[in-house]
Amino acid sequence: MTGDLTEFADFAGHLADESGAFIRPLFRQPIDIISKSDESPVTEADRGAERVMRAIINDRYPDHGIVGEEYGPEKADAEWVWHLDPIDGTKSFITGSAQFATLIALTRHGKPVIGIINQPVNNERWVGIDGQRSTFNGAPISTRRCAALEDASLYTWGAECLLGENANQMQALVRAAHLARFSADGYAYGLLALGFVDIVSDEGMKPHDYLALAPVVKGAGGVITDWDGRDIEFGIGERTLAAGDPALHAAALKILQG
Amino acid sequence: MTGDLTEFADFAGHLADESGAFIRPLFRQPIDIISKSDESPVTEADRGAERVMRAIINDRYPDHGIVGEEYGPEKADAEWVWHLDPIDGTKSFITGSAQFATLIALTRHGKPVIGIINQPVNNERWVGIDGQRSTFNGAPISTRRCAALEDASLYTWGAECLLGENANQMQALVRAAHLARFSADGYAYGLLALGFVDIVSDEGMKPHDYLALAPVVKGAGGVITDWDGRDIEFGIGERTLAAGDPALHAAALKILQG
Repeated sequence: MTGDLTEFADFAGHLADESGAFIRPLFRQPIDIISKSDESPVTEADRGAERVMRAIINDRYPDHGIVGEEYGPEKADAEWVWHLDPIDGTKSFITGSAQFATLIALTRHGKPVIGIINQPVNNERWVGIDGQRSTFNGAPISTRRCAALEDASLYTWGAECLLGENANQMQALVRAAHLARFSADGYAYGLLALGFVDIVSDEGMKPHDYLALAPVVKGAGGVITDWDGRDIEFGIGERTLAAGDPALHAAALKILQG
Repeated sequence: MTGDLTEFADFAGHLADESGAFIRPLFRQPIDIISKSDESPVTEADRGAERVMRAIINDRYPDHGIVGEEYGPEKADAEWVWHLDPIDGTKSFITGSAQFATLIALTRHGKPVIGIINQPVNNERWVGIDGQRSTFNGAPISTRRCAALEDASLYTWGAECLLGENANQMQALVRAAHLARFSADGYAYGLLALGFVDIVSDEGMKPHDYLALAPVVKGAGGVITDWDGRDIEFGIGERTLAAGDPALHAAALKILQG
C-alpha cells in the first residue's frame, strides 16, 4: 500500500509538472474585460490543463477514475479516483494574482490519500500523502502551534461570507481571530501547512476544491474537517475548517457551530 | 526637471534593490504566533529596510526629506521628500503571502512625482514617473479599458470594509462589480496598472500607503483620486479610488459618494 502511494505520488507530481507547463504561459496574458458570459482566458487554462492531466492518467492508469472541474466524471466509482481542479482561485488567475493553484487529489474508496497544491507561476508545490509527513518543494513541513483564537491568523474565502448564509458565525470567527485575510482559496491551506496561517474556513466547496487539501494539512500536523467535525472525504467537505493546532480547531469549530 | 526625475527614478530603483535584499531573507522565516503585543518578525523587516533606505538617501541627497512608516520625519518640509513604506501589506507578509510590497514615493512640494511598488520575493517592480509611461520590470504598461461597473474586477482592503464606517457604499460597489477580491493592499494598484484589475478602493490610507501608487497608476493611463475626486498628494488620499478607465472611475466615485 505504501509502495502504491509512493508511486502514485510521483505520478501526481508529474501531473503537476505537466499542468503547470500548460498553465504558466497563459498567466497574465493580456485579456479583454471578462464579461459574465465569457471567462475565456481562464477557461482555456482550466480546460486545457485538465485535458492534459486526463490524457496522462488514462494512458498510465486506465482503470482509475477521473473527476474534474471542467469535464464529466469517468469511472467515478473506481477504487482509485483522481480529482482535478486545474485553476483553483479563478478570480486570482483572472486578475493577475499568483495566489491560484492547481489541486490534484487521489482518493481510494472516496478517501483522499494523496493531495497536491501546485502554484505553477512561482513554483510552489505542497505534497501530502496519507501517513507521511507533508512537504513543500520537497522539504518536510509542519503547522504552527497556536491554541488561542485571539492569537490566530485566519484566512477565508470571499468577504461575501461576512454577509451570507453563515454571516453570524463567520463574523464571530473573524472578530475572535488576531487577523483575517480573504480571497485566498486553496492556496491558503498551503500557507497553513507551512505554519504561517492558523485557521482556514471555507464554504461552498466542491470535492475538487477540498479533497486535495486534506492530505497536505493532516500530513503537516494540522486538523481538517467539515463544519460538522467529520473527516474530509468525497461528499464531505462542502464547508471546511482547517487549523494548524488541534485545540484551535476545536475552538473554531465551536464558533462555526454557533 | 525631466533630467532630475530620471536621476531620482534610477536612485529610487536602487532603494528598491537594497530594501528588497534586506527583506527577502526574512520572508517565510519560521515565526512563533504573533501576539497582539509582539509583531517582531515584520517589525524587523519593516524597520531594517527603512533604516537601509534612510541611510542611502541621507548619504546621496542630504537636503531631501524622509517620511517613513517606522521612524519619525526628517526635513518633512523640504522641496523633495521621500515617503517609505518598507512592508505594505503586513498581514500578507506575516502569513507567508507574497502580496506585500515595498512602496517608495518621491514628492516635490507634496505632489508625488515618482512611485515604486516593489515585490521583492517574486521580483516584481512597478515604476511610475510623472509625465512618463509606467513600467513593470522595465516594460511599458497600460491599464485596461473597462467602462462598465458590471464588467469590472474590483480589489479592496480587508473585508472589514463591508461592515465598517462606509459599509453601505462599499457593499454597493462590491455588488455592482463583476467580481471582488479583498486583502490586497498596494499590490492591487500594480495589478490595476498592468491591466488585470479595473478598480481599487481603499480606506484608512496614510501618505506612505498612497503616494507611491499615484504615479504608477496615472502613468499607465489610469485615474486615481481620493473619494472626493481630488488628485492624490501629501494629505489627500486617506480614502483612495483608482480605476483603469476614466469612465469607470466616474461611475465608481458616484457610488462611493453615496
